[in-house]
Amino acid sequence: MRQAFRFDRLWTGERWFAPGYLTCGADGLVEAVSGAVPAAGTPLRSLGGTAIPGMPNLHGHAFQRAFAGRAERRGAADEDSFWSWREQMYRFARALEPDQFEAIGAMAAVEMLESGFTSLAEFHYLHHAADGQRYADPLEMGGRALAVGDAVGIRTTLLPVLYLRGGFGAPLRDEQARFGCRDVAEYMGLVERAGDLVRGTMHRVGIAPHSLRAVDPEGLEEAVGAWCGRGPVHVHIAEQQLEVDDCVRHLGARPVQWLLDHADAGPAWCLVHATHVDARELALMKERDVVVGLCPTTEANLGDGIFPDPAYGLDDAVGGAVGIGTDSHVSIDVAEELRLWEYGQRLRDRKRARVALPGEPVGRDLYRAALRGGARACGAPDWGLRVGAPADFVLLDTTHGRLADHGEDTLLDALVFSRAGAPPVDQVWVAGRRVVWGGQHVDRDAVRRRYLATMRRLDAAAAH
Amino acid sequence: MRQAFRFDRLWTGERWFAPGYLTCGADGLVEAVSGAVPAAGTPLRSLGGTAIPGMPNLHGHAFQRAFAGRAERRGAADEDSFWSWREQMYRFARALEPDQFEAIGAMAAVEMLESGFTSLAEFHYLHHAADGQRYADPLEMGGRALAVGDAVGIRTTLLPVLYLRGGFGAPLRDEQARFGCRDVAEYMGLVERAGDLVRGTMHRVGIAPHSLRAVDPEGLEEAVGAWCGRGPVHVHIAEQQLEVDDCVRHLGARPVQWLLDHADAGPAWCLVHATHVDARELALMKERDVVVGLCPTTEANLGDGIFPDPAYGLDDAVGGAVGIGTDSHVSIDVAEELRLWEYGQRLRDRKRARVALPGEPVGRDLYRAALRGGARACGAPDWGLRVGAPADFVLLDTTHGRLADHGEDTLLDALVFSRAGAPPVDQVWVAGRRVVWGGQHVDRDAVRRRYLATMRRLDAAAAH
Repeated sequence: MRQAFRFDRLWTGERWFAPGYLTCGADGLVEAVSGAVPAAGTPLRSLGGTAIPGMPNLHGHAFQRAFAGRAERRGAADEDSFWSWREQMYRFARALEPDQFEAIGAMAAVEMLESGFTSLAEFHYLHHAADGQRYADPLEMGGRALAVGDAVGIRTTLLPVLYLRGGFGAPLRDEQARFGCRDVAEYMGLVERAGDLVRGTMHRVGIAPHSLRAVDPEGLEEAVGAWCGRGPVHVHIAEQQLEVDDCVRHLGARPVQWLLDHADAGPAWCLVHATHVDARELALMKERDVVVGLCPTTEANLGDGIFPDPAYGLDDAVGGAVGIGTDSHVSIDVAEELRLWEYGQRLRDRKRARVALPGEPVGRDLYRAALRGGARACGAPDWGLRVGAPADFVLLDTTHGRLADHGEDTLLDALVFSRAGAPPVDQVWVAGRRVVWGGQHVDRDAVRRRYLATMRRLDAAAAH
Repeated sequence: MRQAFRFDRLWTGERWFAPGYLTCGADGLVEAVSGAVPAAGTPLRSLGGTAIPGMPNLHGHAFQRAFAGRAERRGAADEDSFWSWREQMYRFARALEPDQFEAIGAMAAVEMLESGFTSLAEFHYLHHAADGQRYADPLEMGGRALAVGDAVGIRTTLLPVLYLRGGFGAPLRDEQARFGCRDVAEYMGLVERAGDLVRGTMHRVGIAPHSLRAVDPEGLEEAVGAWCGRGPVHVHIAEQQLEVDDCVRHLGARPVQWLLDHADAGPAWCLVHATHVDARELALMKERDVVVGLCPTTEANLGDGIFPDPAYGLDDAVGGAVGIGTDSHVSIDVAEELRLWEYGQRLRDRKRARVALPGEPVGRDLYRAALRGGARACGAPDWGLRVGAPADFVLLDTTHGRLADHGEDTLLDALVFSRAGAPPVDQVWVAGRRVVWGGQHVDRDAVRRRYLATMRRLDAAAAH
């Protein structure tokens, strides 16, 4: 059902309207946005307040939400790294049954919505049972991710992951049996099945060759060819220096260089992390206009490093886009991701105001860049609250002590940088449905009860 | 009045009791802590839940709270830095009247308590009227900081700041007229006046030579001599590389090196920031057992850099301690400071689990280290919930989705690293008084109303 909204102030990602009117079509996309009252005939709801676009979360592994805070003990030797963390995560991933996977995903999605994320690209690799046994429905687990999206009301771009080997030239390990596909044909079966499940604009599908270590060159070429540009393509790349070194040894080039030399990667591609890239790779990435998927809190937690280019994705006239993801979900907080993206740049450069165009507010430029890159990585038809984009918005709590004394010129800066207490989110609407009200997801209690029951069962099982 | 508390679980900073009992003396200090019911005769209140020690905030300039989010616009040239931020901050500082200073300080203190900070060392330099005119009471402004502490219930260590010059060999600038003292004699008048205002254990006083740039060697020696070791001594040091370079040029040594060579600095000294220190300086700092005051969110926001030694202050058998401060208050969040301290180390080293002893949980070691260093920097008689320490505790909201599935072994890790939504704080008690209940300060609404009225007046004045 088409409906229209009135706000005291509305920021579309590009400009302010005060008051502002937004018309959400029956398909959940923006039909109109302006400072003028919509034509009669569309029910108009006055929400008052200050609305901004919901933020896309372009990279996440929902099940890892339950692992947050459980891998922060220092080892006996000084060897804690991404790789030792991964071993712990693999053990945790082995235990999960589909119902548990769904309960954890719902908890993560509720936290995302309460923070102001309104869509999620789920980089999904837990395809099979723990021993690699196929479920009756090959998309048993992936289907749960879409079910979570429907239940809690977050737009979900399902990215079934292609995982063919354990590393460069290495077979799958037992712990990776859940992730693997025998071949690209089996993988494309998952992808086509995902396509069958898509309903309206709340679901989208893309493909995700896991990484250059987990997918060989032939598998990559075959999958990309079979996909035939029908939607986004995501790949983990250059997160860790060891991965870069291995890639150089096995493929004769740095990962991003190799990828852009061998795959027809363009604007629909999302290079997740891309932490370790050199100037030549950055130039190529801009030329090919790829999205970089930054996951600042996870990249800090895992000791990955700092993305080298503060200007990437900022200027629409230059190729390249950038968005944010909460990845491991150790933190789920829109502002913290944006803040830490900027703070990493400041700490490295020992300057301030890095991710912004000259003369512009940094918080606003960070938010805007992440809207644009995130929407593209999720396969959305447009970004922000432009006509044709998802009609998803956040009504800010402007009585919050950290926002209440800010006008339009500094509101986004305050939202991103100034923080005490809860995020200043009052309501969140996705595709015409109010999913957060008074800062709380409308089904928060039920989702949390189910999550906690799941964790008790997992802990009890681990104790045996 | 002596009172005792019972908790389902109590972490003292050193060990767990379940159940745990804490006896708070009439002086607001811990009389007893154990797993055994206190002797009859002391009223016993059962709070249930999980209690941990309140965190000291060892460095802050309360008035800067109102400036948060107002200095995040990029300049036209690529020159944004600590120094350009300071110019904007000076302009903002000029406008503040005592009532406004107090209203802003109360807002900041309420946010601190709601986050779990229970004491604050206020590094106070807004001594005089904007033109340098002395107030009738020379401690007019500093007295407001103590009044805030009393009103909202945060322990306050007032550190009147000695500010003698505008920089190495430079006179005070007009914008610094509020900060300056004519000489050390005038300064010690402020310090003695502060001492007269101290009431019970809620107040303490220390001295604070601002920095080596703002205090000449003779002034430093004279002030430290007059103070005669009666409490903590705080100094801003080596926050920015330019300051290090200037110091080498004017004093012939790096700032920390010069300070430790020329002042009898020991365990009562807090070196705030100490970002730019070399291996020799670090060794000296440990030898002299000084506290390092890290302010991770401010140091990231201002592009200062990353403290070089993850092991500093971790091992009680080695000299040196470390604590956290929210400094500019751009963020006020205990967990975010601890997390960003650790994340800076991880991003630099490209490893995980930096600030912890081998085999120990990182969140717990971070929290414990900051309790110990913070208490010492605030001049408290002991740290954590040890007998004789401030009886200040935080009752965690263990129904919070980010804590509810964690036992004692990972609870502090989850508190520090795992985050969505509001901080998981239910109640905060300081010296036997409940100041936060249900996550909200008991006077939050009144404090916020006064703060917002103040900001409206300041904005209106700035517009004219």
